[in-house]
Amino acid sequence: MARPPTDRAPESRCDKPTGARLDTGRIRAARDVIDPVFLDTPLYRCEALEPGLGCTVSIKLETANPVRSFKARGTELVASQLADRGKEAVVCASAGNLGQALAWSGRERGLAATVVASRHATATKLDRIRALGARLELVDGDHELARERAAAISKDEGIRLVEDSLDIETCEGAATIGLELVEALSSFDVVLIALGGGALVTGVGHVVKSCAPGTEVICVQPEGAPAMTRSWHQRRVVTTGSTDTIADGVAARRPILAVLDDLLLVADDAVLVDEASIITGMRMLFEHAGLVVEPSAALGIAAILEDRDRFAGRHVVTIVCGSNVDLDLYRSWVGTDSL
Amino acid sequence: MARPPTDRAPESRCDKPTGARLDTGRIRAARDVIDPVFLDTPLYRCEALEPGLGCTVSIKLETANPVRSFKARGTELVASQLADRGKEAVVCASAGNLGQALAWSGRERGLAATVVASRHATATKLDRIRALGARLELVDGDHELARERAAAISKDEGIRLVEDSLDIETCEGAATIGLELVEALSSFDVVLIALGGGALVTGVGHVVKSCAPGTEVICVQPEGAPAMTRSWHQRRVVTTGSTDTIADGVAARRPILAVLDDLLLVADDAVLVDEASIITGMRMLFEHAGLVVEPSAALGIAAILEDRDRFAGRHVVTIVCGSNVDLDLYRSWVGTDSL
Repeated sequence: MARPPTDRAPESRCDKPTGARLDTGRIRAARDVIDPVFLDTPLYRCEALEPGLGCTVSIKLETANPVRSFKARGTELVASQLADRGKEAVVCASAGNLGQALAWSGRERGLAATVVASRHATATKLDRIRALGARLELVDGDHELARERAAAISKDEGIRLVEDSLDIETCEGAATIGLELVEALSSFDVVLIALGGGALVTGVGHVVKSCAPGTEVICVQPEGAPAMTRSWHQRRVVTTGSTDTIADGVAARRPILAVLDDLLLVADDAVLVDEASIITGMRMLFEHAGLVVEPSAALGIAAILEDRDRFAGRHVVTIVCGSNVDLDLYRSWVGTDSL
Repeated sequence: MARPPTDRAPESRCDKPTGARLDTGRIRAARDVIDPVFLDTPLYRCEALEPGLGCTVSIKLETANPVRSFKARGTELVASQLADRGKEAVVCASAGNLGQALAWSGRERGLAATVVASRHATATKLDRIRALGARLELVDGDHELARERAAAISKDEGIRLVEDSLDIETCEGAATIGLELVEALSSFDVVLIALGGGALVTGVGHVVKSCAPGTEVICVQPEGAPAMTRSWHQRRVVTTGSTDTIADGVAARRPILAVLDDLLLVADDAVLVDEASIITGMRMLFEHAGLVVEPSAALGIAAILEDRDRFAGRHVVTIVCGSNVDLDLYRSWVGTDSL
């Protein structure tokens, strides 16, 4: 019987260049800067999910930390660099998870963090940003307007703007997840990764393609927020006019060209899933894995549900990337009214 | 700002003998035998719980692994020793979590595992024991009858009986959690530990009292299953006629003298909590930490809820020891009908 995928291989070769902006040496060095509370997260096979999915499923769990998402791997890099240079403030736009992470990393290093978010962002995420001591500014519009406002604050106040997925630290921070995957003794056939702005996929994808090029890297996005997936397929930036998905963490509509370029180098495929599959995925993770997840974190399971033949008999790892979820909505999704 | 409690101190002194049966050197060596998927579990501060509890709260999460409880730390020791000696079978009685863990560890090492359980044990735990390939035998009675039947099977078949809390491997496996706590850079004022048979408390308590004797070790048991707590207070074995608690994982009624002796050496206090507090604890862990837990894993939070003044302003760590829970009951406890 094979050992589970948590032992470390003594050394990964990682000698296949991807051409992406990311650097594997810098990613390794990032591990020394990121607070250990965010590193070496659980990676384990979840057999109870397998009868319903028809493949071997392992979970990389990024929710058991102080901000309940993977985003702090990136903000730890940004905040430590700013603190080293004597900076005192930082600003970002966020749908909620990056803001929490930047608030946490900033607070640890004496940086004043400002987070700009849509007034329609998930309330529990906004509450946590405030509780972590960040200044929260809300805009009457969607995440793209928040990005514009954050850029304006950065210019006006002369402070660092953290641009998720564009700024290399956000990608290379996320990429440390990839190191933990490729250094596991078990190998995976497929890695399923939520696609929003692109930092998680380009980060993890770069490391997987450098170190374990035989592993398929598949991005998953909701049909209601397909801009980056369409861009990947058309090999040019495609924007959309609006988004319509419960997966607030990946509801972007204006892809960044530099990120798309990286994505084209490291992703083997990009697929869209519908809302019903996302909800079923959340419910399966609750019922069979005992995991509370936000919709974005169920995209990988949703992708399996929508294309079982593709994954049949293969070993799939999916990154459970966040668990900051509105409780009333969550209860309606996984609650007593179903199953 | 203090760093979170995950960095490792370079070396722990651990030079205060407790007199318990456990050996800190063996516990350190156990880390080399236990599959890494069960080690170095998340340890993090959960600030969202703190306003409701009035103290600093860190969580040691033992649910993000293939069996969703801490029990495999012990069964890994047992199974590896048996496999090294060429043994082919093993038997235990279990309320459900030990059985899953022994089934998993046995399967990994080619050991045929038999698990004896009460017919009234939590169905989802029994299902998982079967799914992991163990032979499951049900008895018409409670856990104490299952213990008797397992002992009879051991005698009849000449195979190793694993007695939870009595067998030193079950205590020293659990004790590796203690090493991970004391090697965290942050120190804790109090460790709250679920008390059932006693392996978890004697294990973690031994290490904490050896390595960080200033940290208070408090056992928590339900009022409906108070045998070991009464025994601790009276310093002699006190049995009860029955148990009445939703916390199936700790519903024991016949304490083992050798375990009580250890408990008297390593525990600073033993407290009882009522069922309503356990349910509130489960609900708080769901709502503020995004954690699905079984009732036994909420005992620590319940203890804070019942004695806020005792913990006010202190840094408390609680071990979230399992998440194998009946879904319908769980939904009724944390569901839409409340809050």
